[in-house]
Amino acid sequence: MSSLYEQYRQTLQKHADLEHSIAILHWDKEVNAPAKGSQMRARQLATLHGMAHEIITDEKFGKLLGRLEEDKEQLDHRQYRNVQISQKQFDREKKLSTDFVMRRSHIISQAYDAWLRAREANDYNLYKNELRQIVEIKREEANLLQYDGHLYNALLDEYEPEATVAELDKLFADVREQLVEFAAQISAAPQQDRSFLNRPYARQKQWDFGIKLLQNMGYDFEAGRQDLSPHPFTTSFGSQDVRVTTSIDDNDFGSMTWSCIHEGGHALYEQGLPAEEYGLPSGKFVSLGIHESQSRLWENNVGRSRVYWKAHYAHLQGLFPENLQDISLDKFYKGINQVSPNFIRTEADEIHYHLHVLIRYEIEKAMIEGSVSLDALDELWNAKYKEYLGVDVPDDRRGILQDIHWSHGSIGYFPTYSLGSFYAAQFFRQASQEIEGLESSIESANSQPLLDWLSDKVFQHGQTYSAADLCQRITGEKLNFRYFMEYIKEKYSGIYQL
Amino acid sequence: MSSLYEQYRQTLQKHADLEHSIAILHWDKEVNAPAKGSQMRARQLATLHGMAHEIITDEKFGKLLGRLEEDKEQLDHRQYRNVQISQKQFDREKKLSTDFVMRRSHIISQAYDAWLRAREANDYNLYKNELRQIVEIKREEANLLQYDGHLYNALLDEYEPEATVAELDKLFADVREQLVEFAAQISAAPQQDRSFLNRPYARQKQWDFGIKLLQNMGYDFEAGRQDLSPHPFTTSFGSQDVRVTTSIDDNDFGSMTWSCIHEGGHALYEQGLPAEEYGLPSGKFVSLGIHESQSRLWENNVGRSRVYWKAHYAHLQGLFPENLQDISLDKFYKGINQVSPNFIRTEADEIHYHLHVLIRYEIEKAMIEGSVSLDALDELWNAKYKEYLGVDVPDDRRGILQDIHWSHGSIGYFPTYSLGSFYAAQFFRQASQEIEGLESSIESANSQPLLDWLSDKVFQHGQTYSAADLCQRITGEKLNFRYFMEYIKEKYSGIYQL
Repeated sequence: MSSLYEQYRQTLQKHADLEHSIAILHWDKEVNAPAKGSQMRARQLATLHGMAHEIITDEKFGKLLGRLEEDKEQLDHRQYRNVQISQKQFDREKKLSTDFVMRRSHIISQAYDAWLRAREANDYNLYKNELRQIVEIKREEANLLQYDGHLYNALLDEYEPEATVAELDKLFADVREQLVEFAAQISAAPQQDRSFLNRPYARQKQWDFGIKLLQNMGYDFEAGRQDLSPHPFTTSFGSQDVRVTTSIDDNDFGSMTWSCIHEGGHALYEQGLPAEEYGLPSGKFVSLGIHESQSRLWENNVGRSRVYWKAHYAHLQGLFPENLQDISLDKFYKGINQVSPNFIRTEADEIHYHLHVLIRYEIEKAMIEGSVSLDALDELWNAKYKEYLGVDVPDDRRGILQDIHWSHGSIGYFPTYSLGSFYAAQFFRQASQEIEGLESSIESANSQPLLDWLSDKVFQHGQTYSAADLCQRITGEKLNFRYFMEYIKEKYSGIYQL
Repeated sequence: MSSLYEQYRQTLQKHADLEHSIAILHWDKEVNAPAKGSQMRARQLATLHGMAHEIITDEKFGKLLGRLEEDKEQLDHRQYRNVQISQKQFDREKKLSTDFVMRRSHIISQAYDAWLRAREANDYNLYKNELRQIVEIKREEANLLQYDGHLYNALLDEYEPEATVAELDKLFADVREQLVEFAAQISAAPQQDRSFLNRPYARQKQWDFGIKLLQNMGYDFEAGRQDLSPHPFTTSFGSQDVRVTTSIDDNDFGSMTWSCIHEGGHALYEQGLPAEEYGLPSGKFVSLGIHESQSRLWENNVGRSRVYWKAHYAHLQGLFPENLQDISLDKFYKGINQVSPNFIRTEADEIHYHLHVLIRYEIEKAMIEGSVSLDALDELWNAKYKEYLGVDVPDDRRGILQDIHWSHGSIGYFPTYSLGSFYAAQFFRQASQEIEGLESSIESANSQPLLDWLSDKVFQHGQTYSAADLCQRITGEKLNFRYFMEYIKEKYSGIYQL
């Protein structure tokens, strides 16, 4: 029996070796690769994707899973859960041919290149044909996968297993109703000033400060590194090599800072996964919602808190006295939490953020339904920004071209940002109750108690529990939007004196 | 018929996709990867190596080669040559099991890490166990491959097809006899001064100057990039993404400069290979000897010539006036061509260089024969430096730990540096006869005529001709050491007024 499980483990580890190699090729493409290399890289990626798919859909592997299922009483809970997840993956991937997987990989490579060019030229027209191909192949994928309900469910499942359109529609109805109302209350109050974030901030000093924040969070630079890329991201080549990227805006200190903390949160999760479970579900993150719970928790619940900046503000002021010497900690704290509708998701405040996500969610569903014209998707985008956020999108770069996700073929990803924020609020509330002196540890720049708690509650388990079960285990109940609203209301009522 | 060849082409391209992915993982390991990531990277590399081996040794592929051989009259010369080379590779690789290939990959990964640590600590003892494993697996490999004659022949063939110990022994006997004598003549003459190269040269300015030299050679930065690494190298992920690395010594301007030109020479070859022959022998370099002919030609025949520095010296003086304002072009030219025995191969003058290679060649043969103790290999190294070059090696870092090659499992590689230099002399002599105004084009910083000639004579053919045939086609005769000696004698008799 143990030899069967060992065989299973080896197959998954071989698959993981390929998946991580793919991640290295992707990372290199986004961080380093010269322009002309993209065609050859595209075929290399497609080949690796195809080979990974062959490993995971091999009939022998299917039979092995069947035999493990038959003898399941010989497996412990974690092992059996691994086998079940692999069976689900096998069944899912079996519905896709290797040719399909390679074709999808090629289309994604082309779309990414087109997205880069279009962004550079600030022109959606240079991207829409490739986006159309992305949407077509993702529709094809959803049709092949044959999930119940909305076609989008099949895509969602890749990022957030078991989530459905029915549930998300309900959640986003709450989001819209409660957040829009609360945002309106805030906008009626006297506004906070964040203009000091838009003074000139020297790149190298921003970079150094970001590195320091990552170190302080507990990110291990011997098991990772930070680089620059057009759109910040985190990637893992195994828990001993987890990399983050950031981008720097000379005239917006916020852009680098909170993306850095955000990606750092992702990276802590990846670095904290059990290395001995390499390649197995028990060595992988639960879902993107849970992944985002980590990034959003650090970015917002920690990284936009007063206690966090009590720890770091003096250093920051010392780095940029010309910009910040006249800004008190209180003014800084309120400024970085300014609530104001804007165009850019990654720079949005904690409240409007979810309207950005909602817009993407609605557009994605419509794209997959085939109920929108991709020719005029920029117009739809801008109209929704006008409707939900009341802003006029100035151009494509700050509009439909701002996010990398669709060019990666990631349709069904965006909702997990909101799920993550809501999980984060619920988890952080629990952490505050369970960790004695959490606030004062953060205030003294000591991340360890929180990191230990997250490691104990989240990281070490890999996929041993589903997102829903994990949330239940950690907080005693399933995901509840109420905790996010409580967090938001308490925090912003203070800032805006509501 | 054409569909058979197409099938063959696709198999090789898939294999190339894996090989290039391996190259990306290696490049990343040497340029970027964090220390803790090495174990996971080692298993990822081993998996990719194993899968590449499976593709190229698949029985179906063997049968396909057999059918192509049967119908060879339907293939043109280039196609048939490809099939023949693939058949040879198939036969060779078939003698190695996939397990062996993966084990070798693991050993190499460990050896590289050990080499890095040992170099850092300046202590051969930290490397010798891993070197022993390298030697053992390369001996095992040579035994499995079953070549005629010396065991070393089997390893040599990987780098320089058809070369043998018998031929190399003869060549190196000439090297030793003629170069040692000529070096003695030079050492009896008044010496040149190169101390100006060892003044403090700011890193960033060195870097910028290196980039400028690469650009001037015709290296395409849209199809490549330069980075720093412990040991300079060139790697290709396909001819549209060919990368070079260099290293910078703050107190030795020569270290970066000629390594940069050297790697640039390699890179021009890789960038010049026909992209449409991707994955096929006709899209690959002929042999490492021919590869080194390109790097050594640029490094020495061009990059240490008076006309080359007529083009670039004024700019260099302008960058470092504090170091070079008192150094005339003539003094600079003579200084950079100073002939003087030293410890470091990559910094050796054109004459002693081949004694460095000879030492490595002798040690490699002995290692593969099993006739030397690896425990005391550092002592053997130092004794040979004393014997052949008359120098006392000061420490391991400047002794046995200076080269990366053995840690890569590259045993049989070093002789190709000398072969390359000798090919370079013969090719450059021919180029000087065929290209009208070659010297004056170099003097006016115009690399294009030489680059066009090399492209026409070497790059475009891939492996369509063997090294010997290519040399015959280009120069009308096979490799002849005489041309190297003529070049050396003419150049250095001038410099040293012999």
